[in-house]
Amino acid sequence: MTATADHQILDQSSSAVAGVMPVPVSPRVSDDDPVFALHRGGKIALEVTSPLANRDDLSLAYTPGVARVCLAIEETPALAEDYTWRGNLVAVVTDGTAVLGLGDIGPAAAMPVMEGKAALFKHFAGVDSVPICLDTKDTEEIIDTVARMAPSFGGINLEDISAPRCFEIERRLQERLDIPVFHDDQHGTAIVALAALENAARLTGRQLSDLRVVVSGAGASGIAVTRIILAAGIGDIAVGDRKGIIYADRGDLTSVKADIAAVTNRSGLTGSINEALAGADVFIGLSSGTVPEEAVATMAPGAIIFAMANPDPEVRPEVAQKYASIVATGRSDFPNQINNVLAFPGVFRGALDVRASRVTEGMKLAAARALADVIADELAPDHIIPSPFDTRVAPAVAAAVAAAAKADGVARR
Amino acid sequence: MTATADHQILDQSSSAVAGVMPVPVSPRVSDDDPVFALHRGGKIALEVTSPLANRDDLSLAYTPGVARVCLAIEETPALAEDYTWRGNLVAVVTDGTAVLGLGDIGPAAAMPVMEGKAALFKHFAGVDSVPICLDTKDTEEIIDTVARMAPSFGGINLEDISAPRCFEIERRLQERLDIPVFHDDQHGTAIVALAALENAARLTGRQLSDLRVVVSGAGASGIAVTRIILAAGIGDIAVGDRKGIIYADRGDLTSVKADIAAVTNRSGLTGSINEALAGADVFIGLSSGTVPEEAVATMAPGAIIFAMANPDPEVRPEVAQKYASIVATGRSDFPNQINNVLAFPGVFRGALDVRASRVTEGMKLAAARALADVIADELAPDHIIPSPFDTRVAPAVAAAVAAAAKADGVARR
Repeated sequence: MTATADHQILDQSSSAVAGVMPVPVSPRVSDDDPVFALHRGGKIALEVTSPLANRDDLSLAYTPGVARVCLAIEETPALAEDYTWRGNLVAVVTDGTAVLGLGDIGPAAAMPVMEGKAALFKHFAGVDSVPICLDTKDTEEIIDTVARMAPSFGGINLEDISAPRCFEIERRLQERLDIPVFHDDQHGTAIVALAALENAARLTGRQLSDLRVVVSGAGASGIAVTRIILAAGIGDIAVGDRKGIIYADRGDLTSVKADIAAVTNRSGLTGSINEALAGADVFIGLSSGTVPEEAVATMAPGAIIFAMANPDPEVRPEVAQKYASIVATGRSDFPNQINNVLAFPGVFRGALDVRASRVTEGMKLAAARALADVIADELAPDHIIPSPFDTRVAPAVAAAVAAAAKADGVARR
Repeated sequence: MTATADHQILDQSSSAVAGVMPVPVSPRVSDDDPVFALHRGGKIALEVTSPLANRDDLSLAYTPGVARVCLAIEETPALAEDYTWRGNLVAVVTDGTAVLGLGDIGPAAAMPVMEGKAALFKHFAGVDSVPICLDTKDTEEIIDTVARMAPSFGGINLEDISAPRCFEIERRLQERLDIPVFHDDQHGTAIVALAALENAARLTGRQLSDLRVVVSGAGASGIAVTRIILAAGIGDIAVGDRKGIIYADRGDLTSVKADIAAVTNRSGLTGSINEALAGADVFIGLSSGTVPEEAVATMAPGAIIFAMANPDPEVRPEVAQKYASIVATGRSDFPNQINNVLAFPGVFRGALDVRASRVTEGMKLAAARALADVIADELAPDHIIPSPFDTRVAPAVAAAVAAAAKADGVARR
């Protein structure tokens, strides 16, 4: 194995085998390692879609021809959507503060994930995108920077920006811009989780409105999942963070958590998440914590457990299976993976197709329903959500999102 | 002809024919018009270069594999150049204030030109780039915005930003960033003009140091051309703007023009550009003005005239030919087109290839010399500069720029 640089990186898949000392696998940065070999030079590139072979080509694509397109857009700005790539273009914006499970690794180190996201946008929905990794964590600076770049793009996908800044950044950017601003860690996760929950309820013969749900985690995804399942009709939800169940008088709540306290926890619970699980129908884990088996055992019969923490689910699937009818995780090596890639490509495809000015709650709910419906005739306990490679997904989500945008009056064509 | 939108755009090529009333040609935005048809949907797109067909692909290009690349870059930031696309990526940044000859048309309307630039970068030198059109004209805001985006890119190409802001923006961004910052309207033009002048001098048996030059125009390109020909050894230069020749005591000079006054005009001229032409060997036009034939007639025998204003050269080529040995313009329909595309793709190719931290004066001079040398054995009065489609150009410029970066100590590999 040839080392191309002198760096030790522990292979995350390495683990101790009983009786054998753990050894680091592929410990160096080397192109003999398939992960580094694949990443050499990046995962995306620019493609030229107009011919440039001779003077005639150049006079159409560049001067003097291009001047007429510029003047047309100057006179009628909406023509930029038709005659430039921005009509199909999303900025994937991060500050590198909450990347995967790695935390605040900074903008440069976030790029491989953002490139991956860009590749997924294109591969699954034909959406062009550009990773923009920002060298600032300041809320005002992020908002100003993205707003100033906005004429270059048809939509903004915020990515891996830590809570609570992500909430204000998304809200204020959407107020300022007339293109969709969508924080995928919130809404992508929320859409896919709701779709999975709809199918889990369908499969077990229950109504969403009858479910008692415990959400563990009040970060970006926990807050967004709570909001979308509230919007979908689930009334009895207890949300917890590291300090336990969130209730109105807890005294240490951020404004976002105070808002959540006002619309959840109808039973007035004040204890730990483990206590709240007693009799609950659904557990949705979006934290980095773990739930002991004793607490899982107190859930209602036929429970639904979505343990979505990565790489270590809050409840190990083999434990969850002992008590629950349906188990989902965020991992690809277990059934029922709750994977954002089922949502974001189709959401932006649909939004861009109708030139939506924003992503409404109705568009998110429609995306979840369409995603659930893709496999309505195939439901099984280990198949409540489509595979990430199911080619029916993105078109179905896009069509539903586009229709909802029109219904909500935010479509511009 | 089907109108796809209700807009009237005058075809810039239409003109009055003697005895016939002028009529607008292709007056509407329509895809029956080849320019608009070519621009529909834009001229560039994102390409995915890694396979995403199945779970194994996804686990390498995205989670969990990608995490190890992120951690490697977090530990050693320079690895971002190897393992993301930024090592080959340039931001093409504009505020839309000085687009082609159209002026301040704004960021959205500037996009077709920036896309064209991105297409040229890729087509001629394999450099990936992304157009970033900014919704601000404020110098501080532009600097801050670009600096915050910088972790996403391996270089910054500033484009069509009006003078004098362009000078400060470039200088301060380069001070702040350790990647090349290059204002093409300045240095691209300067490199190509110097190359053409070197070959014109070579062909007419003169030394650069013997030439008396008049530069008309003290905007971005006029200032940059003046600086590069000074650096190349031309000592006797008079620079003029709309108010006439620039001299130290003129009283209305910006700081940039004052700097130019201090290093030019050794004869202490104070009149108009027309007066300065008397006895001059070279006229370089980078203005929107015109020079009367009487003034051209006063130039030295065997004069060199570069009338680069677009679309209307300061001196019509057929007039210039009467008095000059060598005539060049900025237009593709006359011989000797001074076209930036001969410089910027190769300059960034060379700078990125060696991870240059900036573009030095030495790199620009080397680029000009390499560009001139490409056709050293083919020189003729109507062939002092290569064709934009000469495939020898970008590799030659890139190699010279890379070597100069190493010589100047700014290369990082």
